[in-house]
Amino acid sequence: MKNFTYCAPTKVVFGRDIEPQIGPELKALGATRVLVHFGGGSVQRSGLLDKVLSSLDAAGLSHIELGGVSPNPKLSFVREGIELCRREGVDFLLAVGGGSVIDSAKAIGVGLATGNDPWQYASTGTRPEPHETFPVATVLTLAAAGSEMSNSDVITNDLVTPWVKVGITSETVRPVISFLNPENTFTVSKFQTGCGIVDIMMHTMERYLTGEGNAMLTERLAEAILTTVRDAGRRAINNPRDYDARADLMWASSLSHNDLTGCGKTRKFPVHKLEHPFSALHDNIAHGAGLSVLFPAWAKFVVRYDTMKFAQLAERVWGCPMDYDCPERTARAGIDAMQRYFMEIGMPIHLHELGILPKDYQPIIDLTTAKGPVKSYIDLGPEEIHAIYLLAE
Amino acid sequence: MKNFTYCAPTKVVFGRDIEPQIGPELKALGATRVLVHFGGGSVQRSGLLDKVLSSLDAAGLSHIELGGVSPNPKLSFVREGIELCRREGVDFLLAVGGGSVIDSAKAIGVGLATGNDPWQYASTGTRPEPHETFPVATVLTLAAAGSEMSNSDVITNDLVTPWVKVGITSETVRPVISFLNPENTFTVSKFQTGCGIVDIMMHTMERYLTGEGNAMLTERLAEAILTTVRDAGRRAINNPRDYDARADLMWASSLSHNDLTGCGKTRKFPVHKLEHPFSALHDNIAHGAGLSVLFPAWAKFVVRYDTMKFAQLAERVWGCPMDYDCPERTARAGIDAMQRYFMEIGMPIHLHELGILPKDYQPIIDLTTAKGPVKSYIDLGPEEIHAIYLLAE
Repeated sequence: MKNFTYCAPTKVVFGRDIEPQIGPELKALGATRVLVHFGGGSVQRSGLLDKVLSSLDAAGLSHIELGGVSPNPKLSFVREGIELCRREGVDFLLAVGGGSVIDSAKAIGVGLATGNDPWQYASTGTRPEPHETFPVATVLTLAAAGSEMSNSDVITNDLVTPWVKVGITSETVRPVISFLNPENTFTVSKFQTGCGIVDIMMHTMERYLTGEGNAMLTERLAEAILTTVRDAGRRAINNPRDYDARADLMWASSLSHNDLTGCGKTRKFPVHKLEHPFSALHDNIAHGAGLSVLFPAWAKFVVRYDTMKFAQLAERVWGCPMDYDCPERTARAGIDAMQRYFMEIGMPIHLHELGILPKDYQPIIDLTTAKGPVKSYIDLGPEEIHAIYLLAE
Repeated sequence: MKNFTYCAPTKVVFGRDIEPQIGPELKALGATRVLVHFGGGSVQRSGLLDKVLSSLDAAGLSHIELGGVSPNPKLSFVREGIELCRREGVDFLLAVGGGSVIDSAKAIGVGLATGNDPWQYASTGTRPEPHETFPVATVLTLAAAGSEMSNSDVITNDLVTPWVKVGITSETVRPVISFLNPENTFTVSKFQTGCGIVDIMMHTMERYLTGEGNAMLTERLAEAILTTVRDAGRRAINNPRDYDARADLMWASSLSHNDLTGCGKTRKFPVHKLEHPFSALHDNIAHGAGLSVLFPAWAKFVVRYDTMKFAQLAERVWGCPMDYDCPERTARAGIDAMQRYFMEIGMPIHLHELGILPKDYQPIIDLTTAKGPVKSYIDLGPEEIHAIYLLAE
């Protein structure tokens, strides 16, 4: 097993009717003036925002609100948030929403603490890490991105052409506390639920399929998450108010991306890197939908480099019998089973379902490889990426 | 799923050749004068202690040493440690050893910070929690107790007759950082390795078998740990220098007891409560050996109250085919399979193998039930405990 460092200190308060705990917990963490950050009006319509504000009021915490975070959160809006928080003397950020809202809050926190524009820390590996942030708490409404416990923060620079979507990866950006009430995901649409299921699976499989062996416990934990998400996902799609299914998805979202499943493995995330340019260039493409199309195609392209691990995944998670004479058959059957599962939960599996036709490929490939090939089992340059797109047609 | 709070902030530095990181990490955590706490001479003979001290020296940290912690660490020695640390102005505790050394350091830390005797916090649930401690770090040499990431601290009061062995359970006592190098467990004997395997499995199964359903992800994660420990345990027993097997056991030790496998479940730990009086009254009984004898007997006694969960465990971890007409057969086959596994790795399964004969039962039963029955699926009073002993003869 490869050496690793693991530290996931985010406190998680999980379950029904936990909202009254928000104010007291934030107060205990030293908050005095809180930015309540959210997206569209759904947290207002559902009554969640009122519960959050009441809890802050009851704890005597002053607060201001900033709604309007968009999917694929934008740098321009982050900058507005930083200015607002500076003017208002905010010392604590509370994200009420899904991954986009949390990532926006994380970027605001970095900007406030460092005094620098957060974009200077957004990088695929070459830019400096931020070493300070204002504390971020989350009230999660979507089981998907895992940002509620993760060291990731993905933002889109909408001030350049074409837009660029990349991540800040730093221990600094882990939220200090996250409030996870599965009931707050009851109203998530089937499509968004499906996107979340795919995203959770990807955070797990991108860490699993790295070409490294000898991390048996890490792989077993990953399989536990995948198996749970497979079953709970079906149930949540069929009955959006199934509390236990929503609970399993929500907790899986956090554990899939807090690095538990990465211990002893190298972080590469090639499929995320293939996907980000899609949603950067086509803002209407949901991240989970892009992954649903690209992951199986990537898998078919690279399966020959890690056949036994793909076969193990196929056997343990997708129930494919191991063909000891030809494990590649098992491996490929597993990829097919996963793709059928994505179809079953209503997710796209072809590029044209994302509105992407062959004429659109070149700009996406150009953006994907702008800083060089995508690192995977082999380097994925323009030619390899084109081949992956063909496998997704 | 039941509501829960999860927070396991201990930083883990895992792998080969990590000892030079100890000094710098402790310094970054604010240590200035460190108590290096250990047990017998094995950490001296192995050279580990020298590596630890060199790292502290290189970081410019002053330190004193206190060896001699015994298995089932004693309150009298903890008090000596507190006095020594006060005299010497120690501000940081570094445990180099297994669970006993770590638990001794945790108790010293609580005593130093609160100014109170730590025994006043040792309780099965009725005494106050400590809310302060001096920071504790660990350099682990035994994959077993899980104390390196846990909120548990078990000490034995050797100043009363009969001795009493109970735990402090508090978030306060989680170590701030743990250094886990699997090579430091290469020289652990087969018997102690077996004790560790059993202890890790128990920490997982005591949380799994609580009579609560609807925590699918938690149960799958528990099964991942159990399956890994089953396989890695065999390998480590057969080849003590199998790095990957030792690594899986070590990481499983930490994850089995940091509460990851308890999310959405009620903490009861009946078999630990049945076992502690054995090692309190018979100091030569290893905790893991006591558990190896008592767990299968307890399981046979309570299986009828949670048949489907025992059957699920049997199917998923011990490979027993599910008998849908009579799941109790599957459940019982699973208990048998586990007991055969314990025998295979050299652990005792009968009370007489612990040196305990029927004439010894009554004092142990008296101590076990001194504060009332042990809570499990049903209350375990003297009669039920006697029946469990019969199942372990």
